[in-house]
Amino acid sequence: MRLQLETLLNMVDVFDKFFSPKSICVIGASSTTGKPGNVVVKNIKDLGFSGNVYLVNPRGGDIEGYKVYKSVDELPANIDQAVITLPASLAPETVKSLGKKGVKAIVLAASGFSEVDQVGEALQDELIEAIKESGARVLGPNTTGHVSVPSAYTSSFFPLGKIPRGSVSYITQTGNFCGISLRHIMSAENFGIARSCGLGNKVDIDECDLLEFFGRDRDTKSIFLYLESIKNPKRFLRVARRVSAQKPVFLLKGGASDAGAAAAVAHTGSLAADGRVVDGAIDQSGVTRLHKYSQLFHLAKALDKQSLPRGNRVSFLSPSGAFTVCLTDICRSLDMEVPTLEEKTRKRLQKYAPPFIRMRNPVDIFGSVGLVGYEKAYGDALDAVLADRNIDATVVIMMLTSETGIPELKFLAEISKKYPTKPVYVTFMGEHKHNVAAKEYLEPKGIPCYMQVEEPFEVLSILAKCRTNMRGR
Amino acid sequence: MRLQLETLLNMVDVFDKFFSPKSICVIGASSTTGKPGNVVVKNIKDLGFSGNVYLVNPRGGDIEGYKVYKSVDELPANIDQAVITLPASLAPETVKSLGKKGVKAIVLAASGFSEVDQVGEALQDELIEAIKESGARVLGPNTTGHVSVPSAYTSSFFPLGKIPRGSVSYITQTGNFCGISLRHIMSAENFGIARSCGLGNKVDIDECDLLEFFGRDRDTKSIFLYLESIKNPKRFLRVARRVSAQKPVFLLKGGASDAGAAAAVAHTGSLAADGRVVDGAIDQSGVTRLHKYSQLFHLAKALDKQSLPRGNRVSFLSPSGAFTVCLTDICRSLDMEVPTLEEKTRKRLQKYAPPFIRMRNPVDIFGSVGLVGYEKAYGDALDAVLADRNIDATVVIMMLTSETGIPELKFLAEISKKYPTKPVYVTFMGEHKHNVAAKEYLEPKGIPCYMQVEEPFEVLSILAKCRTNMRGR
Repeated sequence: MRLQLETLLNMVDVFDKFFSPKSICVIGASSTTGKPGNVVVKNIKDLGFSGNVYLVNPRGGDIEGYKVYKSVDELPANIDQAVITLPASLAPETVKSLGKKGVKAIVLAASGFSEVDQVGEALQDELIEAIKESGARVLGPNTTGHVSVPSAYTSSFFPLGKIPRGSVSYITQTGNFCGISLRHIMSAENFGIARSCGLGNKVDIDECDLLEFFGRDRDTKSIFLYLESIKNPKRFLRVARRVSAQKPVFLLKGGASDAGAAAAVAHTGSLAADGRVVDGAIDQSGVTRLHKYSQLFHLAKALDKQSLPRGNRVSFLSPSGAFTVCLTDICRSLDMEVPTLEEKTRKRLQKYAPPFIRMRNPVDIFGSVGLVGYEKAYGDALDAVLADRNIDATVVIMMLTSETGIPELKFLAEISKKYPTKPVYVTFMGEHKHNVAAKEYLEPKGIPCYMQVEEPFEVLSILAKCRTNMRGR
Repeated sequence: MRLQLETLLNMVDVFDKFFSPKSICVIGASSTTGKPGNVVVKNIKDLGFSGNVYLVNPRGGDIEGYKVYKSVDELPANIDQAVITLPASLAPETVKSLGKKGVKAIVLAASGFSEVDQVGEALQDELIEAIKESGARVLGPNTTGHVSVPSAYTSSFFPLGKIPRGSVSYITQTGNFCGISLRHIMSAENFGIARSCGLGNKVDIDECDLLEFFGRDRDTKSIFLYLESIKNPKRFLRVARRVSAQKPVFLLKGGASDAGAAAAVAHTGSLAADGRVVDGAIDQSGVTRLHKYSQLFHLAKALDKQSLPRGNRVSFLSPSGAFTVCLTDICRSLDMEVPTLEEKTRKRLQKYAPPFIRMRNPVDIFGSVGLVGYEKAYGDALDAVLADRNIDATVVIMMLTSETGIPELKFLAEISKKYPTKPVYVTFMGEHKHNVAAKEYLEPKGIPCYMQVEEPFEVLSILAKCRTNMRGR
């Protein structure tokens, strides 16, 4: 028992060295713009990392203002983490020498291992032996690295710039989420993240290690996984059950189809365990399964900005009669309820509506906008449905035209804040440039916006399933 | 037989009066900016309608440069079409007097009939009698009107401006598609339309009349319907079978769920015929069913810019290994094949690829871009897979970053033109502003772009079903 506790404490320690290092070194640092060994140093600097940074390159000198050591041997002791940006063939040897230096956390970016060919496979076997000998934990190889925003640190060699801080963490088989996907999030989705980690070939650290760490990580409020294989389905089931009872956990499993699985072999070289075993483990794990890559962004945005809804009962405000019809159909096909409102809510909605419209759920808001204007009609209706005991979440559909102008939309964020347990999302129809402007205005104020009218309902539907999964634990 | 032919000829005539009028009048024309009777006149002027325009308002004078007559009686003879923007209560009387004047095509914008209350229902009955007496065909009431781009004409009272000409026509229960949805198409989707018609309450003209007309209309290459009810399921089955054997016809049926059907009653007031009868008619009609409102735009864009694919065999070029996996899964879940390429295609792809990547379908293009640059890698690969006999359509996934810059993307449109029977769509991951710029550049050149990576595959999947439906006839 005592030994297990020590092992656990030791493990906590190691992942803190990955995600909250006090000192790091980059082996293979480069002064050449665009080279991974240069970009990673720039990224660390751009993020504003406040720990010590040591670089290693046989040429010495300095890069980006940091001193360059000529070899691993010359480095000082007690460095928390090393990032190796050298070619694959040098990896085993470098891992060993870092181990001798007492480094316990190593990120291995290089590709060219088992994902490539038989030579790579042999090299990967050699690497695994070197890791055992080193006593270090290794992330990768064949990964873009990891990102830890609360510590202003990254090992990614993809140019990133300043990453906004949020509460969502990613565990992914692909380096994407410390690279181009992160760039997508930053430039298109306006939400922040806590941690992100590309697992790559998983010769050592795997999804279970990180899921355990993110489970106990206070900076992580929800967890998203993209996996092409699950290394140890039994352990995954055990860990995922525990973590998903406490935090929303979502998984997109790449290679769900036979053809997709074949593509996965080409991508990360790791043959998945038997598909049915993995599916079985996922189904029982309490993790909520996703089926589209885009959902990894759409759901994360929702949870970074708003809470997990309590259930599947939605109201929506629509300026189009056709939308009240089609989107009710969408809700039903997604197992969402569009319930009857409380009588007092209905009466309140009727107050600003033309007498010939009988207000109900979904709320046809067009007439009220015509009578009392955008802000009053939408504002009062949103407040009314959020206060309704039958409603768990609300979608606001805006129809901004050159004629309506862009109303002062601050009221949406202010009303949403009054109901912290009930998510409010916005979607649009009409003049594209107004919709884009409204999205850019509202998302930094905490209101997730979606450009396709069906998207917020799809998000709510998956979040409702997640809530059920969590209750089921 | 001779009588039937005459009836048919007469019908052709009437719909030509709606969609290619030589002279029109607006009853209730207004000089007050923003009023429907003013906007409709402005719209007609803005579109550049070259026929005669007569306005009626008891005050006389002139509006937007057109002479205003004080009553219907004062109008000249032989006017093809009338647009009535008066309140509902004046509709029956106005229809009768227009009938006496020999007007055969009337658009009735006003709401306030059976969709509202019992008074409205009585008024609608009165209107139906007036229509019978008048001998005219009537579109509406409770509609935004219709649009006919080849004739530079519209009866819509929603501010529209210049509408780009295309080959797609819409028949919808809602006025949306001559209003805010049309604005969405114009500002966000960059495709053109031929005709669009909001049916409203369908007291006279219904979906079957228009489907028949669009079926024989040379300006219409594909037809999209949004319906909340089908007035005559038997006739719909007969007409839709004939038309959908010749042109792609798609239908989104609002009120597919019980809750959605209840919302439809509130929206257009027309109770649908028995759900199962309607579903049965649709299933046998050869029409391809849609399930999302967004698809009314996504598919229309695809068909306005590119051809209907011959089948369901897709190739895609991906700069992300994770996408090769996830999007193959998506294809399989959508009944799309991601087939093996011909050996000569594979060899051609290999030419620009790093030797350690074995090129296949889906095409992992990342390595080739690194070796020979964006244009050569993407261009040659696109040409190769389009030439492949196993492939019906191709999706190109771009990953534009500040580092890659925006390459000269013209080559994509040029290569696409070489293979007119094989659609090429583009989607993106990464830096949002580059993706937006690429979309704005490519769509006017004939390449449909989609902002979510799954969307082009969803579109291809529905188009493949449409092709099967057409073959099945």
